[in-house]
Formats: sequence, C-alpha cells, structure tokens
Amino acid sequence: MRTAAVVGTGLIGTSVALALSRRGVHVHLLDTDESAARTAAALGAGVVGRPSQPVDIAVLAVPPGLVGRTLAAEQAQGLARSYTDVASVKAEPERDVLKRIADPDCYIGGHPMAGRERSGPLAACATLFEGRSWVLTPSAVTSRETLNRALEVVALAGGVPVLMESDSHDRAVALVSHTPHVVASLMAARLQHSPDEASQLAGQGLRDVTRIAGGDPRLWGDILEANADAVANVLGELAEDLSAMVAALRRLAGEDQLERSLGLTQVTELLDRGRLGRERIPGKNGATLRCTPVRVLIGDQPGELARLLADAAELAVNVEDMTIDHAPGGVSGLVELMVSPSSALPTVQRLWERGWQVQRIPGLPCERLPERPALSGSTAG
Amino acid sequence: MRTAAVVGTGLIGTSVALALSRRGVHVHLLDTDESAARTAAALGAGVVGRPSQPVDIAVLAVPPGLVGRTLAAEQAQGLARSYTDVASVKAEPERDVLKRIADPDCYIGGHPMAGRERSGPLAACATLFEGRSWVLTPSAVTSRETLNRALEVVALAGGVPVLMESDSHDRAVALVSHTPHVVASLMAARLQHSPDEASQLAGQGLRDVTRIAGGDPRLWGDILEANADAVANVLGELAEDLSAMVAALRRLAGEDQLERSLGLTQVTELLDRGRLGRERIPGKNGATLRCTPVRVLIGDQPGELARLLADAAELAVNVEDMTIDHAPGGVSGLVELMVSPSSALPTVQRLWERGWQVQRIPGLPCERLPERPALSGSTAG
Repeated sequence: MRTAAVVGTGLIGTSVALALSRRGVHVHLLDTDESAARTAAALGAGVVGRPSQPVDIAVLAVPPGLVGRTLAAEQAQGLARSYTDVASVKAEPERDVLKRIADPDCYIGGHPMAGRERSGPLAACATLFEGRSWVLTPSAVTSRETLNRALEVVALAGGVPVLMESDSHDRAVALVSHTPHVVASLMAARLQHSPDEASQLAGQGLRDVTRIAGGDPRLWGDILEANADAVANVLGELAEDLSAMVAALRRLAGEDQLERSLGLTQVTELLDRGRLGRERIPGKNGATLRCTPVRVLIGDQPGELARLLADAAELAVNVEDMTIDHAPGGVSGLVELMVSPSSALPTVQRLWERGWQVQRIPGLPCERLPERPALSGSTAG
Repeated sequence: MRTAAVVGTGLIGTSVALALSRRGVHVHLLDTDESAARTAAALGAGVVGRPSQPVDIAVLAVPPGLVGRTLAAEQAQGLARSYTDVASVKAEPERDVLKRIADPDCYIGGHPMAGRERSGPLAACATLFEGRSWVLTPSAVTSRETLNRALEVVALAGGVPVLMESDSHDRAVALVSHTPHVVASLMAARLQHSPDEASQLAGQGLRDVTRIAGGDPRLWGDILEANADAVANVLGELAEDLSAMVAALRRLAGEDQLERSLGLTQVTELLDRGRLGRERIPGKNGATLRCTPVRVLIGDQPGELARLLADAAELAVNVEDMTIDHAPGGVSGLVELMVSPSSALPTVQRLWERGWQVQRIPGLPCERLPERPALSGSTAG
C-alpha cells in the first residue's frame, strides 16, 4: 500500500491517517469542514485535497448514516480502488452501500474498537488502535483485493483484525459494549437522589459497576441510536431476568417457609447464571479470567504503589490486573493484585517478608506468618 | 477496654478477636462448634471459654437470624456489659433484640464493611477492617456507654465508624452493595450463551460492569435473603427505568422522524441521570471522582508496570486509581493512570520524555510532542 485517502478528519479519521502516514503511506485528507482537514495535515496526518489518480484505499470516517452516500459520491469521482469505513454499526451502512452503488465488491465495512472520550483531530493519536480489535465485515460480494487492503490498514495501525458478518457485529457490540453502558447508567441513576450516608458506604463493587456511566450522554445517545433495535433486544431479555429476580426476592422476603425456600433457589440460580456468563469474558492473551487476588494495604504517599509493584516485579510476579480501593476518609488504600493462582502464595509470603501489610492469604492465614519488626509506612493497626 | 468476648469464630468474629487481642484486649472465644473456637485461639485470637465475670463488650458474630436469641441467651448468663453484632443487615436483628430482652440499652447493631471471599477462622486477618467503614446503628434506647464501647472496638480494629439508623443502613446497603451485585449478575448472565466472537470484542467496560458477578452465588443468596425487600424495591425502580429505556430505543429504531427524535431525547435523559448519579459516589478521601486519565501502552514483561509507576512516583505524581486493559491476543497492555486534572499534562509530558508510549493527552495532542529516539520496550507501531 502506497496511497490512501481519509474522508472525515475527526478523532478516528485523523488517527488512522496519522498511523498510516507514520508508516510511509501517502495520505490524502478530505473533510467537508476544510479547517479540520488542515488541522489534521498540520499534525502530520497527510496532505489536504484529492489525489490526481485513485488511491489504494479510502477510509470513510463519517457518521453511520452517511457511509452509503459518501461512498457513492466518492466512487463517482474515482477516489479509490477500495473503500472501508469506521462506523460503530455495520449492518445498516452495508445495506445502504449495496443499494446505492453498482459494483459494491470494492467496499468492506470496518470498526476499530478504540475508545474515544474526546473528539476532533486535536484529540487524535497515531497509537489509538494499537493492540485493539478492529472488526472487518466483508459482504457477500467484497473482493479479496479489498479485504486484503483493509487488512493492511489494520496491520499498519497496529490493530488486531477480527472478521465478522455485519449483523453479527451489531449484535455483538450491542451485547458487549452498548448494553453494559446502559446497565451501568441505570444502576448509577439509582444513586441520583440517594441520601449522602448511603454513598458513604460505597465500595469498589459499586464503583466498578457504574464507572462507564460517566460517559457523555449525547455521544452515547448517538451510538445507541445507530444500534437501537439490537440493544433493545438484549435489554428486553435482561428485563425478563430482572422481573424474575424481583419476584424471587419478594418470595424470599415473605413469611411462608416453602415460598422462601423456592425464592432462595431462584435467586441463587440467577446469580449462578451471572457467574457462568462472567467466565466467558476473555482476559489477557485470550485466557479466561482465573486469577487469585492478593490484597495489600498501602499508605497514601506518592510512590507507595510503585514501591509495591517494584517489589512484586523483583519477585518476578506478573501482575495481570490490579484495583485500588481507597478507604473513605482514610489515608490508606487497599491494592488488589491479580496474579496466577500458582504464584499467589509465594507472592504473599515474599511481600510479607518485605514488610508489606498483606491482608488476605489464599490457603494460608496471615496470622501464622512470622511477625515482622515494623510495618511499611502505612497505617499500622 | 480490657476484656471482650466474641461469640461465633468464623471469618469476621475471628478477625475482630485478632484485632482486639493484638491491641492488648483480653478476648474470650465462644462458638457452638468448639473446634472453630480452638482454631481461632491457636491463631492468637484469644482464649476459649466463658469469662468468670462480665466482659466490657461481647461481639456477636452469628447469622442475622440468630442475633436476637443469642443475645438473650448470653445476657441471661451475664456474659457482657454491652453487646454488638456484625450482621450485614440491621433492622430485623434490632427488632428481634427489642422484642426479646428486657433492658436493650446494652445493645448496639454493627456492620463492618469488609469483604469476604473465603470463610472460617483460617481466613481471618487482624487487618481486615483497617480503613473500612464500620456502621453502628444505635436504637432509640442504646446507652451512651454501649455506644462508646462499640466505638472503641471499631477504633481498635482500625475501622472508620459511621453512625446510622438500622432501617437507613439496610436501604443504603441494598442500594450501594446488594443491588449492584444483582445488576452485575444480570448483565453477565446475558453472556452465558453468546457467540465466542462477541466475547472476543469485550473491552474494559464490560469487565468492570460484570466483575463482582464472579462472587459465590450461595453466599450472595444468603446476603440477599436477609435484605430481600429493600433490594427488590431498588430493583423495582430500576426496572421502571429499564422499560422506559427499551421503549425509547424502540422509538429510536423506527422510521418516524418525530418518534425517533422523541426517543433520542428520552435515551439521552436516562443516560444523563446515570452520569449525575455516578458523580455522587465519593472517591479517595471523600472527594468526588474527578480525575483525568493518562493512558500509557506497556509491554507484557514482569516489571513494566512497576517501572511505569516508579517513574510516575519520581515525578511526584500521586496516582489516585488505575486500570489495566490488556489487548485480546496481544502482548501489550493499556494502563490508565487517574491523576488530578492539574497534574495530567505535566505527567504526560514527563512520561513521554522518559520514553513511555503515552496514548492520549488531555488538552494537547501527543503528535505535537517532540519525537523520542526509541520506544520503551513495548509494541512500537
């Protein structure tokens, strides 16, 4: 690939252009707002304006509803040999393209799974797609040349290509991205008029469940609009489980022993389905999440966390994930290091020997470890 | 306080006993299963058996349904001058105590907000309560002496006391602890029969929303049983918002422009309520969560994370929170350091100068930073 075009120099379009330019591709930048294209060019994303002859591939970074008509217009002007887009839904743009243009084998849908909290070319970054899944959705007529050109774009941007059908993609993102966002928002909305003393008892669980509810409601409104039916379907199924759960809890709250026992069975079964569903989420390197938590109390000074992780690294522990739970009003924090089950016990013992206040020990109570002379600068009991 | 008793030497009871013993209190350990009491004693939690005269305070670490009758039985034998418990609900035990005993001014409800994934004395830990909220629920008749003895227990265990009425406590934990657990489970249950390709697209958002769904369904069934009505009430309110959301999404998916516009307004309003609710959760030191994310790509070797945090510490950056998002199948990870808004930009610039692959820059595009000679061992684009 030697030449490309990016149509629409917002955050995603400019980031694609930066990534391709950095790898030596000659990129043409087009935007209905020419100042946006000029800004992208000033950042090093390419040159403003149309090519004199067709480029290898054009990336259409426009809203989902504009993909079909933009493609038709650009193809009529001979912009590129192949076309892809970056819209967050794929079925509707594909249908639109197949309806509008005569030779749709030059089109393949695309969706880089990269977050974006800010918008516009100034927020763009050449490394935005590194290590991220980038879905490609070939239609029944997409040519092999077009597929390969799109795969090269993904590779040059450092993304991980995932091939799917457009309908499957939309159902998948409804399930793993759009619905979780709505669920987090619905939970967080319950806190809006809660008493202060209630939120004082909030722990890491509530923080995790509601974290993504902090996203921009307008941006997420647009995202949900483009995939509204698929999200409504998942939420509808969830609503059925929810009313079953409420009914089971009401049984459980009653006086009748038989009803209570029935309620408990139903509640436990619903929770167990959640546990099984949770296990299907791949963790690092595609493995399912099976880590053991090692919990350490640290002080609030800058550097405590770094010192802990430096010690863990010296012990050759590979920390798979980590959470920090700060005590309300307190000076200490509880760090949970997720490590492989086999390294949990040695990790705990060695951190303890180095003076860390390790809180819980899988398979071994911390009280049975030898006493340490002094605690590590954190809140001593 | 010089003497105490712990009735029920499971995880919480033994942890309380360990914390008090460590601070010089003479603790008597009682359990209907005497081997559990002996195990706790062997760990250094105290001595097995009844005191010869009343202790200052007895901590009843028994299931919620047994608090009233245990208190009545122990008071008849003159175990202690004051009594508290550690059950995760407070209204029902309080009602039971007021009904059963003649002079209930000696009782104050308690609930240490400490996690427990394992059970039994062997999992106990003297530091389990450090920096954690410990709710105390004085009844209308609780004496000042009893309140002060309970406050001393909390202080000796390193907890942060929070005074509430028992009913308020139960509604509060339904909202901030029990309902989030159910919501996480309901979301995770949607993944149970999802296609593999869908979970391949899972990102950090889904992981966060569903993390606590991995908890033990039986243990959580018991927790929900004790607070079933309050949880059902919150879930019922959530169900109303959920059906409004589904209806709004169906409007948004239709053809009629006016209906679509109405649907979008409703969806955005519901999301906005979530954003406002989210802001009510206190962060570190009671401040609301207003941090700026600084995102850094790191390699997968042990020590990369520690090296990053050591650099951040050297730059005197206090990392408030942190998440790690590992790329599916990839070797790199995306670390998000949450820092105060004012220190975000200097942090990014200095980490960049030290060779870290900083991904996104609030207020300044990373492309405009000076080029670095080499990248820091992680996946170079």
